Amino acid sequence: MTIEKALVVGTGLIGTSVALALREKDVVVYLSDVDARTAELARELGAGREWTGGEVDLAVIAVPPRLVGERLAELQKREVARAYTDVASVKAEPIADAERLGCDLAAYVPGHPLAGRERSGPAAARADLFSGRPWALCPGTGTDADAVRLVRELVSLCGASAVTVSPAEHDAAVALVSHAPHVVASAVAASLTGDGDVALTLAGQGLRDVTRIAAGNPLLWREILSGNALPVAEVLDRVANDLAAAASALRSGDLAGVTDLLWRGVDGHARIPAKR
Amino acid sequence: MTIEKALVVGTGLIGTSVALALREKDVVVYLSDVDARTAELARELGAGREWTGGEVDLAVIAVPPRLVGERLAELQKREVARAYTDVASVKAEPIADAERLGCDLAAYVPGHPLAGRERSGPAAARADLFSGRPWALCPGTGTDADAVRLVRELVSLCGASAVTVSPAEHDAAVALVSHAPHVVASAVAASLTGDGDVALTLAGQGLRDVTRIAAGNPLLWREILSGNALPVAEVLDRVANDLAAAASALRSGDLAGVTDLLWRGVDGHARIPAKR
Repeated sequence: MTIEKALVVGTGLIGTSVALALREKDVVVYLSDVDARTAELARELGAGREWTGGEVDLAVIAVPPRLVGERLAELQKREVARAYTDVASVKAEPIADAERLGCDLAAYVPGHPLAGRERSGPAAARADLFSGRPWALCPGTGTDADAVRLVRELVSLCGASAVTVSPAEHDAAVALVSHAPHVVASAVAASLTGDGDVALTLAGQGLRDVTRIAAGNPLLWREILSGNALPVAEVLDRVANDLAAAASALRSGDLAGVTDLLWRGVDGHARIPAKR
Repeated sequence: MTIEKALVVGTGLIGTSVALALREKDVVVYLSDVDARTAELARELGAGREWTGGEVDLAVIAVPPRLVGERLAELQKREVARAYTDVASVKAEPIADAERLGCDLAAYVPGHPLAGRERSGPAAARADLFSGRPWALCPGTGTDADAVRLVRELVSLCGASAVTVSPAEHDAAVALVSHAPHVVASAVAASLTGDGDVALTLAGQGLRDVTRIAAGNPLLWREILSGNALPVAEVLDRVANDLAAAASALRSGDLAGVTDLLWRGVDGHARIPAKR
């Protein structure tokens, strides 16, 4: 049992990158997108061929988080694939949608490749986008072993490393390492909008690094944050409290708490795994 | 009138880098540091020769911010140089110290090269550390034109671009583009200390970039923040308020304010000048 034919539904940055990675491994890839021009562009980039409804081994649902359940239900109704996965950056919400819509959860392995770019759309796609990156998988207790095997093969064909976590663990983790840091980067960047140009003249690489991800698409990020609201809010409250306490300590001239925050920052930074 | 001989007082990362840059332009450089081993290491790296008290054209005071006034007073008492500058990352405080200690402000051009590394000490120094970087200068109304000319020559010899600002403008600007972002990066990194390792497994380049500067030396940064406390506190309060509001909006399910913050972040990010 192996992936010979795959269907990618949604040919944005992630879907097209998955398709390109599979094409490099000679998998037959079919492409589908509600926007015909987007799908055509992906085909022109060599990501696969037009899907006319045939059956495949694996369907990869690469649509915005709140549409995953709906698409899964449609595809399963047509019995399109033996196994299904998605690539949404939140996991509890699509799984709850799939349950509510009566999907066959045994054939669905929720997934999330931890990779991205500031640019979006098929033109930004790259076959090596997932190379060396973690790829979270959230199979449930009732998931078929064969479905899990097929999706792990997908991860492997894309050059990524599977990390199995529960949906709640996943959502708390990405709130911590991705979603909340994005909002924080946006808040630092937003603080630059009010001031004169002289201040910006003095900007250096540190500011560029802290704010780089704030250039991301706000509409896409609104969706992501909306689908993971409570875990993100928890992290943001902790960061906001630390910053308000630091501001208050600076005003009072008692630097002990600020110095402690700086040391905790050194410790936390040291926990981030080095780039692979 | 040109820099033929310079004295660098304090042979840490910045002082030794200035010395190396001047040596590349064949300036005779003398080195001095309260720590004899640090000065010796800088000499071994080719940054200059031992200072035995002779006169120079320009003295570069590269010591921690709160020691600048004291060193300036000592050097001026001995009439060591025709002009003096410092490299401290805050400006109002050293200038106030210099005034209080009765320094000759006409010969002192406060300065701050906007460059640095996560590592400190002379071994981390590089002759090209300031290449293409801004270098803030804060001459007062009573500063000698010749002193300003000599310090501008220093900036030019180091390959940097002089930016003239008032001390208050400077301190507000670096609070915005450097000091507050550092504390924010520390707070994001500090949020990583409490959780399990699974979350960190999913970390990507975004988190690495946001937190990179949090690896900086807390003792050095405590000094910097202490010397620029109120401007930094103002920026931190604004960022903390934005983050607390975002957390509250996420909990309530009203994403309008969060989306606005993301858009402001895109606008603010676009204002940062591209790397030179």
